[in-house]
Amino acid sequence: MIRTHYIKDLSQSLDGKEVTLAGWVHEVRELGNLTFLLLRDSTGIIQVIGKRGVVGESIIKDLSLPKESVIKVRGKVKVNKEAKAGFELIPEEVENLNPLSTNIPFEVTGKVPVELDTRLNFRYIDMRRLNTSAIFSIESTVLRAFTEGMYARGFSQIRPPGIVAEATEGGAELFPVQYFEYKTYLAQSPQLYKQLAIIGGMDKVFMIVPAYRAEKSNDVYHLNESTQMDIEIGFADHNDAIALLSETVTDIIKAVKSKEKHALNQLNVDIEVPKIKTVTYEEAVDALKSEGKVQIEAGQDFTREAEVGIARLFGDAVIVRDYPTAIRAFYSMPNDENPNISNSYDFIYKGIEISSGAQRIHQPELLIEAIKKKGMDPKSFEFYINAFRCGAPPHAGWSIGLERIVMKITGSSNIRECSLFPRDRKRVSP
Amino acid sequence: MIRTHYIKDLSQSLDGKEVTLAGWVHEVRELGNLTFLLLRDSTGIIQVIGKRGVVGESIIKDLSLPKESVIKVRGKVKVNKEAKAGFELIPEEVENLNPLSTNIPFEVTGKVPVELDTRLNFRYIDMRRLNTSAIFSIESTVLRAFTEGMYARGFSQIRPPGIVAEATEGGAELFPVQYFEYKTYLAQSPQLYKQLAIIGGMDKVFMIVPAYRAEKSNDVYHLNESTQMDIEIGFADHNDAIALLSETVTDIIKAVKSKEKHALNQLNVDIEVPKIKTVTYEEAVDALKSEGKVQIEAGQDFTREAEVGIARLFGDAVIVRDYPTAIRAFYSMPNDENPNISNSYDFIYKGIEISSGAQRIHQPELLIEAIKKKGMDPKSFEFYINAFRCGAPPHAGWSIGLERIVMKITGSSNIRECSLFPRDRKRVSP
Repeated sequence: MIRTHYIKDLSQSLDGKEVTLAGWVHEVRELGNLTFLLLRDSTGIIQVIGKRGVVGESIIKDLSLPKESVIKVRGKVKVNKEAKAGFELIPEEVENLNPLSTNIPFEVTGKVPVELDTRLNFRYIDMRRLNTSAIFSIESTVLRAFTEGMYARGFSQIRPPGIVAEATEGGAELFPVQYFEYKTYLAQSPQLYKQLAIIGGMDKVFMIVPAYRAEKSNDVYHLNESTQMDIEIGFADHNDAIALLSETVTDIIKAVKSKEKHALNQLNVDIEVPKIKTVTYEEAVDALKSEGKVQIEAGQDFTREAEVGIARLFGDAVIVRDYPTAIRAFYSMPNDENPNISNSYDFIYKGIEISSGAQRIHQPELLIEAIKKKGMDPKSFEFYINAFRCGAPPHAGWSIGLERIVMKITGSSNIRECSLFPRDRKRVSP
Repeated sequence: MIRTHYIKDLSQSLDGKEVTLAGWVHEVRELGNLTFLLLRDSTGIIQVIGKRGVVGESIIKDLSLPKESVIKVRGKVKVNKEAKAGFELIPEEVENLNPLSTNIPFEVTGKVPVELDTRLNFRYIDMRRLNTSAIFSIESTVLRAFTEGMYARGFSQIRPPGIVAEATEGGAELFPVQYFEYKTYLAQSPQLYKQLAIIGGMDKVFMIVPAYRAEKSNDVYHLNESTQMDIEIGFADHNDAIALLSETVTDIIKAVKSKEKHALNQLNVDIEVPKIKTVTYEEAVDALKSEGKVQIEAGQDFTREAEVGIARLFGDAVIVRDYPTAIRAFYSMPNDENPNISNSYDFIYKGIEISSGAQRIHQPELLIEAIKKKGMDPKSFEFYINAFRCGAPPHAGWSIGLERIVMKITGSSNIRECSLFPRDRKRVSP
């Protein structure tokens, strides 16, 4: 490896020791006899001090670099109470690893505001900004907490296909793929496949998959390619799935709070492990109606304003359950006592849906009935329905939208901030 | 939850205790006064014994079920030295959770051989076969070992896009996607994006992604949709990446060996943590030539037979390095001392390539030269090349093919065995 240390691993106890660091020139300033260079790597920033008389003239010259140059610096750690970190680096050798051959399109230090669109066009520069890298550090920790939590609970990870021959959710809004001579689509969700895994006896499965929706909306809450963290449990119902959803969101936020202090600090975010409140759809609608700030009628889906209202009325972390069957996906299990209500639920975190799920219908005849009620043709779902004739156990599941939960954790105002290379109505590159 | 215990959690110490189990009817036999029912869940099989006089007549009737019925059984654990497990279940209540309404297409017990094609058509039944479920249990553990190893080493997980506007590897063999009014493609690999993440300062990244190749070959080693476990390291060279590759493959095999004893047993596989040998391309070619069993000339890519020959000559786990630059991807770094050799490597495990990687070219001018040498037009790579003008550090990486390594670990003869819902030249469903 080129470096001996990451910047975060330096400390005053290394006073006088020689180290080799590598990263980018964050800032350079010349003040009379002094050249200050801020060196940035993926873990932090350190001040490199070139003082005439202390270091050779050629080192002073080598430090005079354009910002964002990628360099290697060998030098000695020196305790200095006045330096921000309590120590600095006295350089002995500076090497430019790959001289810049273009202008950096915008300021990485964040001092000059830049349009999101420009930042996304040059995402590989934008990622060097401390706020952007903080978001993706948190995103990685969210994925980690989800994965570790599922493995710890005995779940198996599966890889459902991304190319499907039929619409799994029965809707339009699919991206067509020319797959040799076959007309296929990008999977909107792993729904059908995770259910097949349950019918196949896997019992507890999870997956992290891209989900493609050809929605033409172009707002700050939707991506056309997003990442879903999905689970499905066999021999279980909605109450089991709701309990696991609560635990998982709690796990994720706890992990971010404990492992991402640096990133949260950078973003100026103080996140709390939420007390999760569970309310029924009916309770939520009643509360919104009596508050009177949002237009809503029983039986309607929640608008963005209604979701914000739910946060206002019930708090940051709310599970809404028992939605009307009519407004949920066809495979949602109707309630035993009142089939107009379904065993379904959403997690509304800081006023936006980050997760959706349901107990699923496992009886083939009930499934056919539900498909017909939605005005669809059971024949188009024959393969799916037939699987349920072979001994399908009761099952339930949910998925969490990765970029949605990261958006809310990081306080980002646009979901594109939380997708490394977002795909939306107008953007297919880089 | 419907059950109180998984079958694996039962033991003789529960003698006399009441438990509720749930799963599928694996076998039923009636022998005079006795009904033997083998109940299977995702963790094991237990014998349920209905003896006339001991259990009620209605229970005997309830046990008389077609194979693969999905049931719940409440009963008492009873120690019985003659039972395979040392104990059995005396049923007190049997509930058919979802009566079968079709014929199960083939024997789940594996007693009757079934064509792979038929098994894949009904994968949700095939998955109930103990050999199939063993493979996917191992696959989940491989993903776990990779993920945990990378997080433990300080890597961040990223989610590169699946839809791309350009061919990232510069070749044909892409599946076109109609993305609104844009002509786009499914990503062949996350190569470009993981490099951009390094240029963006992320330093150590990993990802688990689908890779799509529109190759028309239809052999037992290729899928058109596969899963790649990918990494990239900044401020590092091929030697660093090779060391990490050795460690990772070792980690994966150790994890399977220690966590998947049951599955390996089921598959009758005895896996060893391999001693990894590293040889140069030149040494491998020379050894193959002097052995004389395989047709090979210096400068040629290895054929399937050559890969098998490498296993024969050097063992189960071989890293071949320093391939000729001419037969590697354009972005492979030529060696400092001899540019006809590249800083590249493959991992050949049990006679098949499971991983490929290289140090990448990070200097824009060298990249342009390499693109031209492959007969391609640097203009088509302008965006990619420009990123390298902004301070790209030296970097290296690799990817491991998930289904390939699982195929070799499990001793499967066809890679389709190791993809839950494989996509190949002729198969796009289920």
